[in-house]
Amino acid sequence: MSTTHFSMVELIGEKRDGGILADDALAWIITSYVDETVPDYQMSALLMAIFLNGMNSDELAAWTRAMLYSGDVLDCSEIPGKKIDKHSTGGVGDKVTIPLAPMVAACGVPIPMMSGRGLGHTGGTRDKLESIRGMQTAFDPETFMDLLRRNNVVLGGQSATLVPADRLIYALRDASATVPSIPLISSSIMSKKLAEDLDGLVLDVKVGSGAFMKTIADARLLAETMVGIGASHGTKVVAFLTDMDQPLGDEIGNASEIRESIDVLHGGGPADLVEITYLLGREMLVLGGVAETHEAAQDMLSDAVESGRAFETFRTIVASQGGDVAMIDNPDLLPIAEHAYVVRAAADGWVQRCDALDIGVASVRLGGGRETKEAEIDPSVGITVHAKVGAAVETGDPLATITYAEANKLEAALAAMESAWQIGPVAVTEPSILLDEVR
Amino acid sequence: MSTTHFSMVELIGEKRDGGILADDALAWIITSYVDETVPDYQMSALLMAIFLNGMNSDELAAWTRAMLYSGDVLDCSEIPGKKIDKHSTGGVGDKVTIPLAPMVAACGVPIPMMSGRGLGHTGGTRDKLESIRGMQTAFDPETFMDLLRRNNVVLGGQSATLVPADRLIYALRDASATVPSIPLISSSIMSKKLAEDLDGLVLDVKVGSGAFMKTIADARLLAETMVGIGASHGTKVVAFLTDMDQPLGDEIGNASEIRESIDVLHGGGPADLVEITYLLGREMLVLGGVAETHEAAQDMLSDAVESGRAFETFRTIVASQGGDVAMIDNPDLLPIAEHAYVVRAAADGWVQRCDALDIGVASVRLGGGRETKEAEIDPSVGITVHAKVGAAVETGDPLATITYAEANKLEAALAAMESAWQIGPVAVTEPSILLDEVR
Repeated sequence: MSTTHFSMVELIGEKRDGGILADDALAWIITSYVDETVPDYQMSALLMAIFLNGMNSDELAAWTRAMLYSGDVLDCSEIPGKKIDKHSTGGVGDKVTIPLAPMVAACGVPIPMMSGRGLGHTGGTRDKLESIRGMQTAFDPETFMDLLRRNNVVLGGQSATLVPADRLIYALRDASATVPSIPLISSSIMSKKLAEDLDGLVLDVKVGSGAFMKTIADARLLAETMVGIGASHGTKVVAFLTDMDQPLGDEIGNASEIRESIDVLHGGGPADLVEITYLLGREMLVLGGVAETHEAAQDMLSDAVESGRAFETFRTIVASQGGDVAMIDNPDLLPIAEHAYVVRAAADGWVQRCDALDIGVASVRLGGGRETKEAEIDPSVGITVHAKVGAAVETGDPLATITYAEANKLEAALAAMESAWQIGPVAVTEPSILLDEVR
Repeated sequence: MSTTHFSMVELIGEKRDGGILADDALAWIITSYVDETVPDYQMSALLMAIFLNGMNSDELAAWTRAMLYSGDVLDCSEIPGKKIDKHSTGGVGDKVTIPLAPMVAACGVPIPMMSGRGLGHTGGTRDKLESIRGMQTAFDPETFMDLLRRNNVVLGGQSATLVPADRLIYALRDASATVPSIPLISSSIMSKKLAEDLDGLVLDVKVGSGAFMKTIADARLLAETMVGIGASHGTKVVAFLTDMDQPLGDEIGNASEIRESIDVLHGGGPADLVEITYLLGREMLVLGGVAETHEAAQDMLSDAVESGRAFETFRTIVASQGGDVAMIDNPDLLPIAEHAYVVRAAADGWVQRCDALDIGVASVRLGGGRETKEAEIDPSVGITVHAKVGAAVETGDPLATITYAEANKLEAALAAMESAWQIGPVAVTEPSILLDEVR
């Protein structure tokens, strides 16, 4: 423990003036904020100065490391093999984790996955998993490690004792307009992921209307920043930039996304969702050292699905985490709201736009997401998309089916989706889903 | 009262992104901060965003007005004549207010002066006045107005009920590294001065090592900003930029600065102090409408001093505010520490530099200023400067006399002053004290 003392006012002033803060100063700030000797009003001023003046890669490495060690960290050293995880920056219809984790684990790669809940228009893996009756995702570190030892994979939530600095800083950022900052986003993500004691991490950085990052340039910067933080920590990180102008897959909801995930585990599912799941899976197998090449990894993943081992692994996860296995054996048992409304094309032509943000907001309004942290989610509602960008439609063709529980929520959802689809007279090709990668 | 509601997070975000905040939004922020519905951690984030992204003149006018009306304001309408005040941004040896206020009041201009205390290396008028035994400077608005009615001049302190927003924001700026910001400095000064219900204001913006503003460009920007705020409020403001590379006058201390002020009231005193006192005084008489021209104003001020009316006015102020008049009739009765140490020239030549900041810091270390808000001041200590820039000196000539009470404090003061004087072989002319003016 260093005996160096710092003045928070002086450190804020340095960052305010565009200076570079030393490693020990950054560590002192995080420690002092967590132990409440630095008050919120100083931290929020510093966060705004960081927002506006940035951090260089050395600062970011030290800041992330200090956050990472602000609480418990997992120790996965006793688990054989390279521990690999995947993180998505969040989007609409992004249920990739649910089929991906069992597929990769079935190929022998240990996956200590900790996921988040949905907030705003983006869904959360934990919320989706909890559509399965009885499914638990909140574990203390001991239980988490026990599950990892037994199953080689856990689909958990962020433990309260890991990275307390992030929980405190995130709440303060939310209240001080300092959320959309690349150093602050990347340190938040990476501190939590690195606290899982990983050997490798695959990042899915979403770009487009339904994502935090609206432009490829911003997304690339975020990806490069996170890859850099990983490198400074000695953890291999590969990032993919993928499209989030339209939803991923056809289902947007909670129970409905579990159903679509099960389709993928059975070898089905929509092409875009399958493409991303295998893309990330191949990289995880290579990072995990169980495949030498992406081709070999593809064969292993296909075999895990075709043989039924991937689905069997998901079944084991659900059973071990208290979930009702009958619901995944027969997905019709998953909750589904009783009413359906079909949105239809108002013109002939090709779908030019199928807006992820509008559809994400509509899903929240249906009750499928939460507008505040305290809100309850209805797992039974959702939107099924029938026509995505590039599809040819005629007037009256179904664009989406809305599964809803309350008429007023349907109306609110329809209002949000009013201009989600744009149909034009010019044929457009299906957009690429993979936009770029950063290694 | 508007019923408009704002989201503080959204307003911080707008300023963070370089946006312009509307008048009613700025007023809402100030009101909500004073009534504690906006917490410190949001205000400090906003202050940092303002620090880094600035405010335009419309925003600054609305922000200052909201601060000004955050508490009581004086109503001087019943006092005949135009009410005029002077404000200095603070420097070392700047005791101008003490001779100036009685001189101008003796010429018939009402002066509702509220001064501050010293903090850091700059002295404060209130601290200096309190060297006079019994002298009071803290008045509630009723007592303040009563003194103004009787004497046409008050040398008071800032009332706690005037501009509470400034007191709260200033404390937060101090703790969040957002002090040296031109919009925040200018709104702080102008809200307090405009709350005195003035018709005109003369600003002395100090520039140089001993001032907040180190460059003429920064000082001019601050001056222009404050003149602009005055204009938007319908109050005439004239600003002078004056030198603070070296101390003003020869005395730096508390009781010693009262003695030097009395010299000026008796027609004596050092040339630079006299020059600035009359410069500001002439402008105040013109703004106050009692002189048509600066020449006429100069004659009136000279007559007030030569006739003894200026000193008599000071005597009345001291007596009315509880001070011991004997001490100003015989300044030898003012406190003076018993030990003296003479700093001598180490070389022959001309004084190239006589650093205001170093000498200001030395004065604080002697006990003449405060390093923290709670510190007590010793009025009896001080530094008398014998050789300022341009003076020819020989080795062994006295540069300054330090009047001190404790040997360890003398040592600390000498350490601060180690390189205050620079003596070189090239003759230099005395620097101009008036650098620029903004009307």
